[in-house]
This record gives sequence, C-alpha cells and structure tokens, in this order.
Amino acid sequence: MRQSKLFTKTRKEAPKDEVSKSAQLLIKAGYIKKEMAGVYTMLPLGLRTLQKIQEIVRKNMNKIGGVEMNLTALQDPNLWEKTGRWDDKVLDVWFKTKLKNDTEVGLATTHEEPLTNLMKDHISSYNDLPVYPYQFQTKFRNELRAKSGIMRGREFLMKDLYSFSESKEQHDEFYEKIKKAYFDIYEECGIGDKTFLTFSSGGSFSKYSHEFQTETDAGEDIIYYSPSKKIAVNDEVYNDEVLKELGLEKSELVEKKTAETGNIFTLGERFSEPLELIFDTKEGERKPVFMGSYGIGIGRLMGVVAEILSDDKGLAWPESISPFDVHLVNVSGDNEDSVKLSDEIYEHLTQNGIDVLYDDRKKGVGEKLGDADLIGISKRIVIGVKGIESGEFDLYNRLNDKTEKVSESQIMNLEFIKKNGNN
Amino acid sequence: MRQSKLFTKTRKEAPKDEVSKSAQLLIKAGYIKKEMAGVYTMLPLGLRTLQKIQEIVRKNMNKIGGVEMNLTALQDPNLWEKTGRWDDKVLDVWFKTKLKNDTEVGLATTHEEPLTNLMKDHISSYNDLPVYPYQFQTKFRNELRAKSGIMRGREFLMKDLYSFSESKEQHDEFYEKIKKAYFDIYEECGIGDKTFLTFSSGGSFSKYSHEFQTETDAGEDIIYYSPSKKIAVNDEVYNDEVLKELGLEKSELVEKKTAETGNIFTLGERFSEPLELIFDTKEGERKPVFMGSYGIGIGRLMGVVAEILSDDKGLAWPESISPFDVHLVNVSGDNEDSVKLSDEIYEHLTQNGIDVLYDDRKKGVGEKLGDADLIGISKRIVIGVKGIESGEFDLYNRLNDKTEKVSESQIMNLEFIKKNGNN
Repeated sequence: MRQSKLFTKTRKEAPKDEVSKSAQLLIKAGYIKKEMAGVYTMLPLGLRTLQKIQEIVRKNMNKIGGVEMNLTALQDPNLWEKTGRWDDKVLDVWFKTKLKNDTEVGLATTHEEPLTNLMKDHISSYNDLPVYPYQFQTKFRNELRAKSGIMRGREFLMKDLYSFSESKEQHDEFYEKIKKAYFDIYEECGIGDKTFLTFSSGGSFSKYSHEFQTETDAGEDIIYYSPSKKIAVNDEVYNDEVLKELGLEKSELVEKKTAETGNIFTLGERFSEPLELIFDTKEGERKPVFMGSYGIGIGRLMGVVAEILSDDKGLAWPESISPFDVHLVNVSGDNEDSVKLSDEIYEHLTQNGIDVLYDDRKKGVGEKLGDADLIGISKRIVIGVKGIESGEFDLYNRLNDKTEKVSESQIMNLEFIKKNGNN
Repeated sequence: MRQSKLFTKTRKEAPKDEVSKSAQLLIKAGYIKKEMAGVYTMLPLGLRTLQKIQEIVRKNMNKIGGVEMNLTALQDPNLWEKTGRWDDKVLDVWFKTKLKNDTEVGLATTHEEPLTNLMKDHISSYNDLPVYPYQFQTKFRNELRAKSGIMRGREFLMKDLYSFSESKEQHDEFYEKIKKAYFDIYEECGIGDKTFLTFSSGGSFSKYSHEFQTETDAGEDIIYYSPSKKIAVNDEVYNDEVLKELGLEKSELVEKKTAETGNIFTLGERFSEPLELIFDTKEGERKPVFMGSYGIGIGRLMGVVAEILSDDKGLAWPESISPFDVHLVNVSGDNEDSVKLSDEIYEHLTQNGIDVLYDDRKKGVGEKLGDADLIGISKRIVIGVKGIESGEFDLYNRLNDKTEKVSESQIMNLEFIKKNGNN
C-alpha cells in the first residue's frame, strides 16, 4: 500500500489520560484510536497486526483439532440463571440492556453457558467426543477501571476454545496439548522467552488452573518464577502448602511483574451438570460431559508485545506480526530517479506477494524516517539519491536495530529480501 | 475436514417459531443456531460460508481503494447528540447500556458519527482526500420484530464503507465505481441475475440513494423494475414525478418482491458539518468533507442466497461460497476397499489445497446422501463398492443437479477436479 493512501497520520502526543506506554505508542503511530477508556478502534495498521496474531492463533488451534465457529454477544438470561452467573454479584462485569419488549439481555463476557447449551444438540454419546470448538469473538466486560490501554479492554477480541471430553483422562491429554500450542503462539509472536507457565487457583474439578504470564513492567500481576524448573505460581496461590506440593523452594523463586496473556482452565462438570449436557458412556452410563476452557485475548497480546518490543523511538514488531513485511521509504521524494526506482521496487515486490508499505509522501527525510521508526515495520528499505549514486542501499531491521548495505539487484531478488533483514 | 470431527449434526426439524425458509434450512443443516429472535450463532459450516462472502466483499472493496479498519460497538453519546441521532425517536433501534459509573453508552447500529470524528485526526487538506475506510463489524439493532432469520438480525455482521471526498464530483466518480463493485459481489455470490439497482429516497445532498434489491419471496420490500432499462424504483419513490424524471413508464415496470442486499447513500455534509470535519480546499477555502456510506449485510446476503439457491432437499451453494470445495462421501463405510480409497482421495485433495469435507461417519447410504443434499456443498464425489467394481464414480453438482461419471484417475487429477462438476 502506498502510504499516501493510508489515511492515518502519526501524531506527536497521545491523549493525556492515556498512561499505558503501549497504548501511547500505538496511538501515536496510528494503530489505534481511543473511543473511551478501554474501548479502542483498530486503525488499518492496528487491524493488520491484530489479524496476523489472529491467524497465528487460528493456525495453532486448528493444528490441535479446534473447529472454528462464532457465538453471539447478545445473551438470554435464562441460561445464565441456571449456572448462577446472571447475578451481578457473581459475575460483576456484565453489560445489560433491553429488547424493545422490555426483556433484559446481556452482552457476553465469556461463552460457557451458550456453548454448553448448544452442544446439547450435538453431543449424545461418547462417539461424539472429544470436540474442540473455538471462536474469535468480541467480548464486553464492564470493568470498573480500564487504564491499561488495549491490555484491559471493555470491548476486545478474544479467542476462546472449549473442550468437551468423555473423561478427566481424555481432558488431561488435550490440556497438555494446548499448553504446548500456547507456547508456540507466544514464541511466534516474539514473547516466548518472557512468558511463563503459572499455577493459579483452580475450581472444584482441579486444584490449579494455568495462566500464561508475560514479564512486563506494565503488567498488573505478580508471579514467583523458578528459572530452573521453568514454572511459576501467581500470588493467589503463593503459600507454603502449594510450594511444597509443586516441589518449589522459596529461595529459588524470582518475583516478576507480569501481564496475563492467556489462561487455561479445567471446568469439569461445572457447566455441563446444571445445563444438563449429558452423554452415554461406553459402559452405558449417563454422565455430564467433562469440560475445559482456554482463552487468549488477541488485543491484549498485541498490547503486551507492543509494550515489550518497543524503544523510545517507537514500536518494533517481529516479522510474524508486523503490519507489513517491508517498509519502503523513498527519502528523496523530489528526485525523479529515486521516485522511479522506488516505484519499480514497490511494483515488483507487491506483485510477488510481499506486503509493502511504500512511503511515497511528499515529506522530508527526518519526518519519514521518524514515522518509520514509530510505526516499527520489521524490515525497512531506504531509497534515495545517495544510494543511487553509491549503488548501496540500507536494509534495516527495526527489531534488532541492524543495517545491512544491499544492492538494487539484491532488493529486486525476492529470495534475498525474504531471507535478509530478518529478526 | 473429516465429518466425524465436525461436531454439528443435521436435524429433521427447525424450531417451530422459525418462519423463514432460509433460516429453517440453515438450522436443519447445522449452519446456524438460533439464540433468540434475530440472534444467531454461526456454526462451523455457517462461519465458513460467511467468511467466504466476507472475502469476496473484501477483495472488491480493496480493488476500488478501500482501506480496512475496525470501529467499536460501544458508543459515547456525546458524538451522537451532535447529529441528533442519540434520540430514540430519531434512531429507533438503539441498544443502550451503562458503564459502572452510570454513564450511558450505546451499541452501534451504524458508524457515521465515530468515523467522521476519527477522521478529524487525519484529514486537514484536499491532499488527504479522497479516502475510503471500511470495516466488517458486528452491528446491534434493537428491531421490534425479527422474523426473517439471518435476513434481519438484531446482531449481525455488516460491511460498511464510508467515502470522504473533496467535492460532489469526486464523490460521484467513486459512487459509480462502487455500484459496479457491488454488482461484481452479487454476481460472484450467485445472485447477480436476480439483483436490481433500485432508486430510493435520498437526503439533502442527493435526490436519490440506491438500494440493491434481490428478488425473493422471502423479501420484505416491493420494487418496480424495468427489464429493458435494468433499473428499478422502490415503493417509497414510486410516483409519477419520479418515474418521469427517470424516464420510466408505468407500463414497462414489473412488480417484484425483494430483499435489500445492499445500499449506497450520498451523505454530503450531513455528518461532516455538525461534527466539524473541515478541510482546506485547493483554493484555500475551508469546507466540510463530502461523504457517502455504503453497506452490505454479510449475514443477510448469506440468508438471501440460501433462500434463492435451495430446493426441497436442502441448500445448494455456488462454488464461490460453498463451505467446502468438495464433499467426499463414502457410501460403503463398512467396506475396507471403499474406506481405503476414500482416505487416499481425501489425503491427496486436502494436501493439494482443495478443501474437502469427508463423510467418514458410520452411517447408512440414505442418511449420508440426505445430509449431503441438505448441507449443499457445491461439488460431491461419491465413493462406494459399486463404483470400485465398475470403475466409475459419481461427480455430482448440487446447484445444477447434474451428475458426471468419472474414473479414479480423474478424481486424483487436481486440474480435472477443479474444472469439472462446476456450476
């Protein structure tokens, strides 16, 4: 895309009430726009990165047998009354509204109830199990405070997968698989080395649930991490009994400030029993289905990456979730040769499936490179009069802050461009 | 995907309160689930078709310069008060709810106000124009009645594009382009020949707006169509004055029952003036931006196609929006050779990028073929003992109801399968 057609402009200042560093950068770079606290529009650059994260999550969910669907935001209270969660004291983040006929309805904060109910049409026997439906869905949560930018939204895109199994054993097998899939996702998004499997409190059907906590000063959580055992506990379950059970010594634990970038939870019969999702076992018994739930906030993940992979000049995306593959910057916009070469490179790369943001604007060098640093596309090619004269151009990697000198023929070589300037 | 892993089951009956034929079929075939009137979950098959329609719309919007973004559902009343549309008497389909601090917020039914406001950050001069942001966004509309299945939802996915132009002339040029793009979309979705450009009432800035009306008994609208001039008027503007202006004679007009599958609207300064989206013209004047809006309900379009392209056995999708490319049905599930050959075909086609639903279930022939007719995937390959013995298998086209006899080697030939059995 030509940058002259990308309608967003960078800005010098973020709104004064925006305290989160990632939100400040994302606003200044033109990725998001704050509509109200915890409610953000995704501008074209922001949507591109969000969609890339979504695609990484989708690929990893499909790989372990996930089947994508899409539940609704509007919720019938009847179902939620059966599990006790319609009550604002039990679930304290409901937005509620009314149909024209005065019937009260809610906006979903999570989807255990409607999905469990739906599955009654499709699960009747052990032959129908296990199944792993998931969705990307906009959740609404009426948070009292929302000061962490897109890391804690009142309206946000979430991936939620639910597992339906015939037994705890079948459930446990999947639970281990999805743990691994989650780490693959964090790894691919560039925060694998800062994300820790963290024990947190469970429910009636398992002592613990697991959070994936990513180290960042902007986090709202505290965890205690064992570098040698590569597990952590959150402060909810940080006590002698739990440490003993997990074989951890206080002395080996490092305290870290973190943000939760995912969680997985054994639900057991918590929902299938009250909502009567019952199946026939191999042995001819009737039993509630054994369930689990597995969430990743897509917007939050994007916020956490922006928080960690950025510097004082701006964002610095890994290639995997960079809004474009290449930022082509013509720094000699007035020069005919420079425009001609830049146009040729743009056409060539774009026509060959490389996603290029081409800065063809009539702006000065300083402003263009400043904007490029702020926007943080992973790979940058700089074209200008000096390069044309010397035959050497800058191929810059934003994340590593490294520059290689490359020739015109290298730039035009698709394999070379795909391989070089990488993170 | 193996059908044994697709968790949805077909059903014999739709809910009794579901009067729309398309919704009945989509529910019976396992595409959608009714959560409440006008609120439908997209099951895996439904989501696949919805996403294919979305992709067709996206491609055509990008082609004419559309830039994708994503606005929010939650809305700040302040903006809407400036245009007078916060008032339930003016916009009568609001869902309203409250933040924890008792501030009232709304759920967006459309997005002129927030987008016009957002553009104030990005448009200041004629150099910044024209721009064409668009989104796929879940809209909420508190309809009094919602009896037409996914053709009139209370919660539904919509594509809305907004144009920002420096003059009526620049606007008109784009308006003609998007008209053509819309017809390309209907054509690709298989309802091009039944969709008519229809004049309807405009606003202060243009006498008419345009609807795209698709002929179906399930429609809620009436239009008057001229087969020779290929335009129609809706009943709102069906009067002598309008007919004279458009050069239409009553005698040439055919009355048709239709559903609106899109609309395009010249907004002019209706929103840019009260919300102060002002730019510097080439001549150094200050003027409000000239706007237009362009909607297509993605769910509604899916519903209308289902209404038109179906028969008493079930749905019959065109290839372009069929949830899978091929339905591979093993009708001799107990037979080892038949399972072996079906498995081979499935692996071969899937590994080569053909999207196959493979009916590997332990069910009888009648049930399998009945389900296949109901689900309506465009191309079907039937494998069974009889075929293995004779060396001839059925390649069936669901939409045209035509069967070709093909050999095993033809089935394994990717080019052959892509070309044959097509609509």
